[in-house]
Amino acid sequence: MSILCVGSVALDSLRTPSGERDDALGGSATYFSVAASYFAHVDLVAVVGKDFPKEHVEFLASRDIGLDGLEHRAGKTFRWKGEYGWDLNEAHTLATELNVFESFNPKVPDALKKPDWLFLGNIDPELQLAVLDQVQRPKLVAADTMNYWISGKPDALDRVLGRIDLLFINDSEARQLAGESNVVKAAMAIQRMGPGLVCVKRGEYGALLFLPPKGHPGHTRERVFALPAMPLEDVKDPTGAGDSFAGGFMGALAHAREATPAALRAATLAGTVFASFTVQDFGLERLRTLQRPEINERLEEFRQVTFSGIVEGTRLVPDKR
Amino acid sequence: MSILCVGSVALDSLRTPSGERDDALGGSATYFSVAASYFAHVDLVAVVGKDFPKEHVEFLASRDIGLDGLEHRAGKTFRWKGEYGWDLNEAHTLATELNVFESFNPKVPDALKKPDWLFLGNIDPELQLAVLDQVQRPKLVAADTMNYWISGKPDALDRVLGRIDLLFINDSEARQLAGESNVVKAAMAIQRMGPGLVCVKRGEYGALLFLPPKGHPGHTRERVFALPAMPLEDVKDPTGAGDSFAGGFMGALAHAREATPAALRAATLAGTVFASFTVQDFGLERLRTLQRPEINERLEEFRQVTFSGIVEGTRLVPDKR
Repeated sequence: MSILCVGSVALDSLRTPSGERDDALGGSATYFSVAASYFAHVDLVAVVGKDFPKEHVEFLASRDIGLDGLEHRAGKTFRWKGEYGWDLNEAHTLATELNVFESFNPKVPDALKKPDWLFLGNIDPELQLAVLDQVQRPKLVAADTMNYWISGKPDALDRVLGRIDLLFINDSEARQLAGESNVVKAAMAIQRMGPGLVCVKRGEYGALLFLPPKGHPGHTRERVFALPAMPLEDVKDPTGAGDSFAGGFMGALAHAREATPAALRAATLAGTVFASFTVQDFGLERLRTLQRPEINERLEEFRQVTFSGIVEGTRLVPDKR
Repeated sequence: MSILCVGSVALDSLRTPSGERDDALGGSATYFSVAASYFAHVDLVAVVGKDFPKEHVEFLASRDIGLDGLEHRAGKTFRWKGEYGWDLNEAHTLATELNVFESFNPKVPDALKKPDWLFLGNIDPELQLAVLDQVQRPKLVAADTMNYWISGKPDALDRVLGRIDLLFINDSEARQLAGESNVVKAAMAIQRMGPGLVCVKRGEYGALLFLPPKGHPGHTRERVFALPAMPLEDVKDPTGAGDSFAGGFMGALAHAREATPAALRAATLAGTVFASFTVQDFGLERLRTLQRPEINERLEEFRQVTFSGIVEGTRLVPDKR
């Protein structure tokens, strides 16, 4: 089972209260691919400039990420410079240099046109549509988006929503897209726009996964999963948390081979676990050294913190007093 | 096992996008007592004016809440008028009339001076201290507080923190009190101020319970519990959610008889369940009609939404590939 991922590969300059990094390997497709690579083979479609360090290519290759779709073009790599304030909850963009990304026109190599699973990272919805036009219908198509496209390209985004199975979206952006303040109603409204699955990412507060309602493929009795995030004392840099959440999620789904409710629940857990690692160090630094047993250990730790000892049929009060 | 609760009883005028109510029964001690009354006997110490409707007294008595400590004084009952905007996350106070509450000087009746469990609702920390001076040391003392006292009465609050076992506090107020943006670090800092247990209430995002660290009574290997809130489509009015969370929590703890880690976890679940009911209607309206079997049903529904199928020893990835 292989995953095709289309998105940005970038060099990020990050400032957080814990420190700073310049020209660190970043981008939505990078975080996604590295996280997903623990579960499944990932092929990356993205663009970098001639200045993109060879060591980064070697690192991605070392994770067994397919790089046939990584275009190297004349010019400079996409650069993002961002700063996080005291509460780490919001990134303030200091500078965006699109560089080669400005004319990014994703081309899926012929050998990759029949992906089992497809992730369309947070890029222009026009490009997301262009990718969909190039591939044979995968088992599941997921996409991410953001406020910039919600307000700037609503029509293209609407067409994307009609062609995907799963949308990853931030809490506030879900409310913005749906024009609805209640997150459950917002997710239900987004489901009516197309995707049967809506995963609302809530940063340090966790995630909600809304399952297909009546009339959507994959509809079951399950309606929604809710998970808190792993409570962490050492949060250094939230950059990439959402994309590594999506990477862990899609990786676990590919590993499970079918998007059953049980697999989707495990996927939400996997996303939670990967996001928890990512934020513990700058950029990709924590994922660079992450070993497979650590993933299972973190899951067990998360289970202890959340679900341990809560068993079916537990009662809070006697039905009669 | 009985719980003594000291706090405010009020007549609230509420405006939310779902509607409005005037002079509805409210106040921190009211929400707390009604929720806790499903689990244990609660005695209420509070003050109301001569205008306090007899029907409200009858309702509290119908919940078997002890009213010997409910003072009826000449003057008007404490009134609060508040409004919630689009996102329901923040209350905007439109008017506060302290009335008889302005000179509230809680007097614990002699027969209630040996409570098993004590809850000091969100009132002036000087009054919380005055109550502590009147009672024999209970099994567990919990208190709530808010930004107004954190900035306005830091010294008195500090003395309260030195004499309680459990602090209920909002997410943003925990950060404010500790001067620390990371919620885990903030809770740990508050624990160093006194209470071994810190329960961080996060509204629609759930709750965190921090357990006693080394050197505190009740210290075990368990460090923290994290729960999401119940995802709800029909949130009408968040007033009282935090106090009914505390009421369900303390009620469940009293019901369990000891504050073991397992009992504390069940208490956090009970708080979550009660808060979820409260927000589904205006003021106390949902709790007025709540039947005991519904509590267990909601718990089972919450378990389905969160923990179902996640079992010990689950692995996300094979340790070796």
